[in-house]
Parts: sequence; structure tokens; C-alpha cells
Amino acid sequence: MDIDIQLIEQSKIDSVDFNNLNFGRTFSDHMFTCDFKNGEWTNPRITPYAPFTLEPSARVFHYGQAVFEGMKAYKDDNDDIFLFRPDENFDRINKSAERLAMPPVAEDVFFEGLKKLLHLEKKWIKKGLGNSLYLRPFIIATEGAIAASPAEEYKFMIICSPAQSYYGGDVRVIIAEKYSRSADGGVGYAKAAGNYAAQFYPTSLAHKEGYQQIIWTDASTHEYLEEAGTMNIFFRIGDKLITAPNNDRILDGVTRKSIIQLAKDNNIDIEVRRVTVSEIKDAARVGELKEIFGSGTAAVINPIKGFKHDKDSFELADQENSYARFFKEKLLNIQYNKSEDKHGWRVKI
Amino acid sequence: MDIDIQLIEQSKIDSVDFNNLNFGRTFSDHMFTCDFKNGEWTNPRITPYAPFTLEPSARVFHYGQAVFEGMKAYKDDNDDIFLFRPDENFDRINKSAERLAMPPVAEDVFFEGLKKLLHLEKKWIKKGLGNSLYLRPFIIATEGAIAASPAEEYKFMIICSPAQSYYGGDVRVIIAEKYSRSADGGVGYAKAAGNYAAQFYPTSLAHKEGYQQIIWTDASTHEYLEEAGTMNIFFRIGDKLITAPNNDRILDGVTRKSIIQLAKDNNIDIEVRRVTVSEIKDAARVGELKEIFGSGTAAVINPIKGFKHDKDSFELADQENSYARFFKEKLLNIQYNKSEDKHGWRVKI
Repeated sequence: MDIDIQLIEQSKIDSVDFNNLNFGRTFSDHMFTCDFKNGEWTNPRITPYAPFTLEPSARVFHYGQAVFEGMKAYKDDNDDIFLFRPDENFDRINKSAERLAMPPVAEDVFFEGLKKLLHLEKKWIKKGLGNSLYLRPFIIATEGAIAASPAEEYKFMIICSPAQSYYGGDVRVIIAEKYSRSADGGVGYAKAAGNYAAQFYPTSLAHKEGYQQIIWTDASTHEYLEEAGTMNIFFRIGDKLITAPNNDRILDGVTRKSIIQLAKDNNIDIEVRRVTVSEIKDAARVGELKEIFGSGTAAVINPIKGFKHDKDSFELADQENSYARFFKEKLLNIQYNKSEDKHGWRVKI
Repeated sequence: MDIDIQLIEQSKIDSVDFNNLNFGRTFSDHMFTCDFKNGEWTNPRITPYAPFTLEPSARVFHYGQAVFEGMKAYKDDNDDIFLFRPDENFDRINKSAERLAMPPVAEDVFFEGLKKLLHLEKKWIKKGLGNSLYLRPFIIATEGAIAASPAEEYKFMIICSPAQSYYGGDVRVIIAEKYSRSADGGVGYAKAAGNYAAQFYPTSLAHKEGYQQIIWTDASTHEYLEEAGTMNIFFRIGDKLITAPNNDRILDGVTRKSIIQLAKDNNIDIEVRRVTVSEIKDAARVGELKEIFGSGTAAVINPIKGFKHDKDSFELADQENSYARFFKEKLLNIQYNKSEDKHGWRVKI
């Protein structure tokens, strides 16, 4: 595949304070774009990161055909660059695209675009555990027509944003009793843009009560714990780790499935099954609920310090042998080429 | 409110064949734009309809903050221009915006922008029943930042597309048994962009089976009939008209609520209550199901000729005294200033 490359005249990297990065607000020098027209992906190109033009009638504005992925590039002490299970992101963006009646991005477009861009942006990936270049591949419907039907034209783009180790402070969550993230038979399993906007308002209500996130429950009964906003969710009762099974409401998280595998590798008792609100509350009452944590690409693992449901609030004590810390260290060591990688998750670029 | 106006040099209206309009693909000469920045709506302007630039990181592409309305402007025989219940669209775009954590558009921005634009685009509104200028007000999140939280910057825009009487051929529908449009506690009642993309794939499966649309059912049981894709839905059993009540899954349609009022005005027995799949199938089997029709701004009323559920298919016979035709005529006569308008729905611009 021939990628047309137009380099920036002057890198802006020297103006960036890599010790004070605000997540998702700084972008690297270049971006990758490929157009879908007449049934095929065409004109793959790397250009300076810059605004681009769209018709006011572009279907993404009106009918929400937009899917994305979140990935990170890591650098080890030898300046080698790695991705973590990129095949999973490629598979998932196309599952998301299919559910939204969008064309799948071609494998060479996805991977050649990603690799070429990463080689150009090498200096934007800083060494040191926690530093990374966050990668955002996404597909949007660009065709200008406001008939309510799938577009014929799309753009696939990759933009890059340098990121530090993400720590959002202590996280406490509300378990959803009224609002829902997604329906059976809906698009919850897809990384669809519309799934996120739908969460902002209920999350803002949680903020007003002093909670940072929501643990979403099933829409029918609000009894099954499913996902925490932008993360999958794990519960530790005693020494057993539990997470909800995938269904069409829950995102098939790459970090989630890696944790399940690492648990098995390390003889940690892991159950992938439905978890009810009452089970968690009962366990919390008798001191058996040791940990809750979210998992996702941005934060890797995010420990949850407390939760609220109905009129009940619970605080979780710090654990000396925390699973959250254990898995985070395991994952970071694999991602940064500091440990063995027996499943071949680390991919050198 | 001062609206900055930049006129097009040469109108493109002479290049448009108003007898062969493809819905939503032709746009008028001008558009209205207003920016939301620093907590307020600012810089209202009318400019030539043209592409505009956005950051690749604009939140609308990643997190789906996008809501819209559909309205029509009508011209009567005296060249007067009318809107139909525009207050309803204004209220609804702001309900939609609230649910997606977006700022409400200011009343003067919405109405002054709409009026000024319509006066400029007068010649794009053609006389004759069925001709109209379709208006598409929408709000999108423009701020360039890929943190998963509500944007601080938005654009409110209105674009205009000339439309003819919409007839999409005979419509047959499938009643949803697996896929869902929205969840309890979700965003189904909002005119959110993401709700539409979510319907395209299941609808494409229906197309493959020879059906044009889907009647969505509740996500939990698939037993309650709710909405037909882009339209609300009515059932006539005997001489009784039935439509589902509004809930947080169903769009509060302007045409729907007008039909309910017109039914009352004309002593047609109307029930707003939950309708089950089995009730409709049972009625169809004994010949009591006389009509099904969808209602919405684009098509006004769209009769449904047949439906499929599970292994059963049903065809509906033509009715001599069709409710669909009755309400369509009533509505068009009000919209085009051809009849009395006792509820004050028609607004002269």
C-alpha cells in the first residue's frame, strides 16, 4: 500500500510539557487519513495534524455513524516501540462498524497506516512506565446527505495524543438504578460514539452527588452489574475475582480479557458470570468485598474506593495484596517489555 | 439579536430540478450557524451553504454529542410562509440536548435564525401541496479534545433542503424480535444522532428480506410495539385507533401528538396505551386490523401495507375510509393554510 506523506514543516513537540499532559488535549504532528468512496478505501495519506472540512450535511452529524478505538504505543529502554494486542482493536473496530452499517476498514489500511504514523511520531512516545502515545483510530460517515440511511462515504483516521500515567484521584461510583447505558439487542458492545454521549448526563448527576462514575446495570432489572462507564468492571469477593460475561450490552474490553487470562496464569480464582447488586452489597456488609476495579486502555486499572446504591454507601479498605495493583504491574511490565510475554500480546513496531 | 449575513454571489436555484428531488441531497443557498463558547451562544451568522472545518478530535466524532430536529416550511397560494408547531421542535431539541449533556440553544438564536434564514430562502419554498423546504436544525460538539466528557464548545446550525411529497412506495415492516432501538433509562426519547446509526444494520437485514422498515419493540420482552424506525406508529383495530404512550424509549413526535388531537376533534376513538404484538396479530387474523401507519415530519403519514413477526406475515387490505388518508389530508390542509387551524399550530413567518 502506498501512503502519501506530507510532513509538517516544524514540529511542535518542543512546545509540549510532557510532565503536565491533560489527557486527550495535545496531539502529535501528524495524522493518518484514508477515504472510503465508491465501495473501496482510497487515498491513504499522512498529513500534518490539522482541522479538515466536512459538509454540514455529513451523516456523522445527523445519524451518528461513528466508531473508534483506543490504543497505546509504548517505548522500552532500548527505544523500541510496542503495541499491545493491536489485532484485538482491529477486530473490534470492524465489529463496531458492522453494527452501525459502516464498511470495515481494510487490514492493510489499519496496520500500515498505524505503523507508518508511529515511525514518524517516534519522538512523541516517551520512555518510562506510564508514558505512552495514545492512539485514536476512528471511522466517520462523511457523505453529505440527510436521508436516514447508511452513508456511502467515510473517513478512517488515526490521531495521536501523548499521555502520562493516568490517575484521576480516588474513584467512587454510583450503581445505576434509573438510567441505562444500552439495551439488549442494541449497540452497547460496539465502541460507537453515541454510547458515550448517552452516559454524560447521568454521570454529571453522579458528579453532583460527589461520585466520579456510574456502574451500569442491565436496563430491564437494574440488578446485574455490567460496566463502569468507560471501563469494564471487576469485583473481588474474598480471594475470588468476578467479572460480568460479555453480552450485546457490554464492551469486549482488551484489558478485561487480558486480566482474565493473567488471573488464570497466576492461579487466581476468576469467575466470568453475572454479578448482582445484592451479592456485592451483602459481601460488602460482611467485609468480604475486598476490591472493585475498572479496566480499560486509558487507565489500565482504576481501583474503586467506594460505591453507593439506593440509600446505602460502602467504603472499601485498602488491601495489602491488592489484585488491582498486581494486575496493573503485570500488564505494564508486558506492555513496556519488562517481562516475559508468553501469550505474544506485545507487538514490536 | 444581530445576525451577521453574508450572501451567496450567485444562487444555485436555477440548477435544481424541483420535480425530481431526492430527499435530503439538495441544499439551499444559505445556512445559519451560531457558536457556543465560554458558556454562551455567540456569533450568529448566515453564510453560503458550504463545508466547514472541524478538529479531527472534535467530540462529535468520538463521543456522539449530536442532536437534531426535522421541520418543514410551507408556502400557501398567497406566497405566505408557514411553520407547523415550531415551539415543539424548539422544546424537543433542548430536551434532547439536556439528555446528552449539551447546552440548550437559546430561544432567540433558534427562532431568529430560523426566520431570517427562511426569508432569505423564500424562493426555495415551492407552492403546491406536498412541496416544502425541509429544515434541519442541529447541535454538535465541536471542541477538540478526546477526553470522554461533555464538550465545552458546540455549533448550532440550520440547513435547508427542498422536498417534494414523500412517497417511498408500499411499505412493509418486520416486528423486531432480537434487535432493539433503545433501553429504559436510555436516550430513545431524544432525537440523538446515535439512535439512528444504531437502526441502520437491523434495517439493512430487514431490507434483505424484502421489508422496508422495522417496528421496534421494548428491549426486555419484545412484546410491546413502540416506534417504526424514523416514525411513530398507529394501529387501527375496527374503528379504534391505538398508539403507544410516550416513555423514555419513544420519540415524542409532533405529527403523532397532532394526530391524537385531530382524532379527538373528529370523534375518532383514540387510545394511547401499550399495544402488544399478540393483540395486533390476533386482530389481523380475524380481519379486525384495518390499518397501520407511521407518522413523522418527513412523510407526514406513511401507510404500512403488511408486516411480519416470527413466521407469520400479514397483508392489510385497502380501506375505503382510511384513517391514514383522513389524517394526512387534515394535516396538510392545516400546514398549507387551506383550512381552519383551531389549535394555532400554523405559524406565519
